Amino acid sequence: MTDPWADPMSAPVLDLNADLGEGFGRWPLTDDEALLSVVTSANVACGFHAGDPTTMRWVCERAAERGVRIGAQVSYRDLAGFGRRAMDVPPDELADEITYQVGALRVFAQAAGTDVAYVKPHGALYNRVVTDAEQAAAVVSGVLQSGGLPVLGLPGSCLLEAAAHAGLAVVTEAFADRAYTAHGTLVPRREPGALVLDPDAVIARSVRMACLAAVTAVTGEEVPIRARSLCVHGDSPGAALLARRVREGLESAGVRIEAFA
Amino acid sequence: MTDPWADPMSAPVLDLNADLGEGFGRWPLTDDEALLSVVTSANVACGFHAGDPTTMRWVCERAAERGVRIGAQVSYRDLAGFGRRAMDVPPDELADEITYQVGALRVFAQAAGTDVAYVKPHGALYNRVVTDAEQAAAVVSGVLQSGGLPVLGLPGSCLLEAAAHAGLAVVTEAFADRAYTAHGTLVPRREPGALVLDPDAVIARSVRMACLAAVTAVTGEEVPIRARSLCVHGDSPGAALLARRVREGLESAGVRIEAFA
Amino acid sequence: MTDPWADPMSAPVLDLNADLGEGFGRWPLTDDEALLSVVTSANVACGFHAGDPTTMRWVCERAAERGVRIGAQVSYRDLAGFGRRAMDVPPDELADEITYQVGALRVFAQAAGTDVAYVKPHGALYNRVVTDAEQAAAVVSGVLQSGGLPVLGLPGSCLLEAAAHAGLAVVTEAFADRAYTAHGTLVPRREPGALVLDPDAVIARSVRMACLAAVTAVTGEEVPIRARSLCVHGDSPGAALLARRVREGLESAGVRIEAFA
Amino acid sequence: MTDPWADPMSAPVLDLNADLGEGFGRWPLTDDEALLSVVTSANVACGFHAGDPTTMRWVCERAAERGVRIGAQVSYRDLAGFGRRAMDVPPDELADEITYQVGALRVFAQAAGTDVAYVKPHGALYNRVVTDAEQAAAVVSGVLQSGGLPVLGLPGSCLLEAAAHAGLAVVTEAFADRAYTAHGTLVPRREPGALVLDPDAVIARSVRMACLAAVTAVTGEEVPIRARSLCVHGDSPGAALLARRVREGLESAGVRIEAFA
Repeated sequence: MTDPWADPMSAPVLDLNADLGEGFGRWPLTDDEALLSVVTSANVACGFHAGDPTTMRWVCERAAERGVRIGAQVSYRDLAGFGRRAMDVPPDELADEITYQVGALRVFAQAAGTDVAYVKPHGALYNRVVTDAEQAAAVVSGVLQSGGLPVLGLPGSCLLEAAAHAGLAVVTEAFADRAYTAHGTLVPRREPGALVLDPDAVIARSVRMACLAAVTAVTGEEVPIRARSLCVHGDSPGAALLARRVREGLESAGVRIEAFA
Repeated sequence: MTDPWADPMSAPVLDLNADLGEGFGRWPLTDDEALLSVVTSANVACGFHAGDPTTMRWVCERAAERGVRIGAQVSYRDLAGFGRRAMDVPPDELADEITYQVGALRVFAQAAGTDVAYVKPHGALYNRVVTDAEQAAAVVSGVLQSGGLPVLGLPGSCLLEAAAHAGLAVVTEAFADRAYTAHGTLVPRREPGALVLDPDAVIARSVRMACLAAVTAVTGEEVPIRARSLCVHGDSPGAALLARRVREGLESAGVRIEAFA
Repeated sequence: MTDPWADPMSAPVLDLNADLGEGFGRWPLTDDEALLSVVTSANVACGFHAGDPTTMRWVCERAAERGVRIGAQVSYRDLAGFGRRAMDVPPDELADEITYQVGALRVFAQAAGTDVAYVKPHGALYNRVVTDAEQAAAVVSGVLQSGGLPVLGLPGSCLLEAAAHAGLAVVTEAFADRAYTAHGTLVPRREPGALVLDPDAVIARSVRMACLAAVTAVTGEEVPIRARSLCVHGDSPGAALLARRVREGLESAGVRIEAFA
Repeated sequence: MTDPWADPMSAPVLDLNADLGEGFGRWPLTDDEALLSVVTSANVACGFHAGDPTTMRWVCERAAERGVRIGAQVSYRDLAGFGRRAMDVPPDELADEITYQVGALRVFAQAAGTDVAYVKPHGALYNRVVTDAEQAAAVVSGVLQSGGLPVLGLPGSCLLEAAAHAGLAVVTEAFADRAYTAHGTLVPRREPGALVLDPDAVIARSVRMACLAAVTAVTGEEVPIRARSLCVHGDSPGAALLARRVREGLESAGVRIEAFA
């Protein structure tokens, strides 16, 4: 497997990203304060699967203060399902929904003295655009309509292919706590073993992905995995703590934690 | 009554504004195409009381083509009530909700090669900020957070007062088809006679407001009414046609129809 | 093709159903008053793709007055997409969403002195459960949870199969103005020729389906189509008028228009 | 102060109620399992301020198993604000919104082998109908439309007055952890001291209200407070534990904990 978007640098440099601002109104979810002290890139929910205006403002202000990069975590319009239910949205509508979300977040990023630096799809949309070329093209079209921004996604996905083809910067991503298939794709969440639960294993895998560009698949094979950004999760108890340990483990192994250009 | 925001020019110059893009998904409402051929300023719904992303994009594109100015028609978050039900939204939340809506519209305006040029509250929020200083301040705060834009509103309203105080440009507005009280405020919609239904009367009143800065109150008194913009309605059958006739009537009377600076 | 759910009666008896109450708040859509004077069964929107509480009450009251049967037109939760975007809702959630909608409509039907008499899925859900056995089972499970009601659907669909298997009454349905494939399924809406636009053709097809249990496919073949209910549409201009003409055409041809038992 | 709805029994008997099912989709909130082991009446959110269909079903099933009474916790339609923002909903719409919520919950209660036993307004609506006779009448109208159910509310409120006048059973309620004014009304949440935070004080006050029908106001006066039901809160960490301690305290003091008839 060759990865056309892989970062060619031999020195291990890694961006750390996490989903933030995923509460809604009365319902908090992610430990935003703690995560902002760990990650270099914050994927901020924009109101379609989570994220209310006040949370968006707050996260943008804190991220700006700390120099954490702000990304638009765009989603299907599905608060009740937290954006985890794939939807057959016609491409034109989907593109406009993406644009709307980027715009809504951008105004808060700009008010905080910075800007939206990239786009990352959330949940079911993220998974859908790995293989659905039509929706991938729609997401890219929505990003272009927003002025054009780097796109964060799975190596080899239709999304990154379409984004690169459209001239957008692409940023490859790996997951610290997700199991991989022998093909380098993620084991679906509903399957057993989809999540790596042991914290030490999560850290060891992260270091190995960063330094050796490899991961052991759920079926035992060695799989090449080359990514510029590593996603850590923030919506479970203890998640922020684990994220911090992952960062420390990476730094101890000589990995430089740095946002992508 | 003195109106500190009145346009000092003696020559009758008037902006014409209307609410556009007030459909949602499957449900069309305003005759946007026809209205865009009449007005100089389009108050575009931003998704909180009406307006979906695709409609927002479409209206922004058409408005940009025709040189019609785009305004953010911001509202309480109330699709089910079309933003016509006053809400006790805490000021901080309200400010952020305003900012969110402006940002969501701006990205489409910018994609169309222009920008959001002003903000006008919709429905219950419009009425509330005539007298509610706290919510008026929240709207202004939301506009400032969006970078600062002119604010369109009722002469003498708390909103325009707060906007002017904050250093924002203010644009006074009159209504072609709404009845006025002896105090220069609007007769509430639920009261009898709130709407002027006779098309010829609507035109005659518009001309009189533009040329003589006066209107006859529902109780018979002469009321001074000095406004830089005139609002015509677009959500009833025949509305676009009446709007056109109002424009023609004004032009015949020597009024120059021109967007505010 | 054999249709295990077909009505075995040789005498042409037909129920006429239409979608009603598909406005939302400020946005009207269906001409409910006119349709209620034509149909024997009203598929009432329950708030997930359309339909607000006041409209639901109003339609139930009018339907009860006229002796029109009330059905729950259940949908994915998707106001923005009018329920026309297929969603991968987990079966348990989908079942509960169906139950919720039936319950919400039932209270209005009971307040009007009648009850919900059947369930018919709307839009993308209707199409999905033609072939998706898992979601079909979920809909049936939701109906069972609501106390058990007849289910209206496409002959040969997974939905009717699952409903019959669960012991629910099933009601087969044909469409007056939709084109059919040679397999007796509907030509998807996005394909050319999906809708029969000529009113006389709509009427002639309806009569032929009712009397001869046959329809001419879009590719020219004769297709057997045996249905106990005929769906007429109500959400386009002139729809109610066409529905009336269809009814008159059927009655002239000796078809008895009567709700299913 | 005389309380026309007070329970005339001299023996201290008290219903314990709490808000349950106040999560939404991905966002949990109340510790429903723990609360169901404490309360005799569960105010279940119906989807307008919180509460999704699956949560509603689950809570109804568990409540039925444990013999806990199910009440419809009806609200303004305001997920983003958790029903805490007062809304000027026209009375007819409000009545229908109440009915819709009761119906949606009832189908789950009936599926669980029981039924909705009462109605209690939530949040801003609860507070509004203490003094707003028009909205109070609308709530009562919505309850009547749902078949008629007991109404839980503040002693002396417009709501209980309107409910009693309409022939509905009324149930008076006190709050274990809320401060009272000298007039027997609640100190508004935003004011300092609105919540009694010391667990021992909460328990002592509860016992005193149950046994002596009195509470000490925030300004020091003794205030008569006679209620058939006591509300304990369930949406903060440790809430369920405190609720259990309140129950134990009451029982130790000889109060019989029993749902109202």
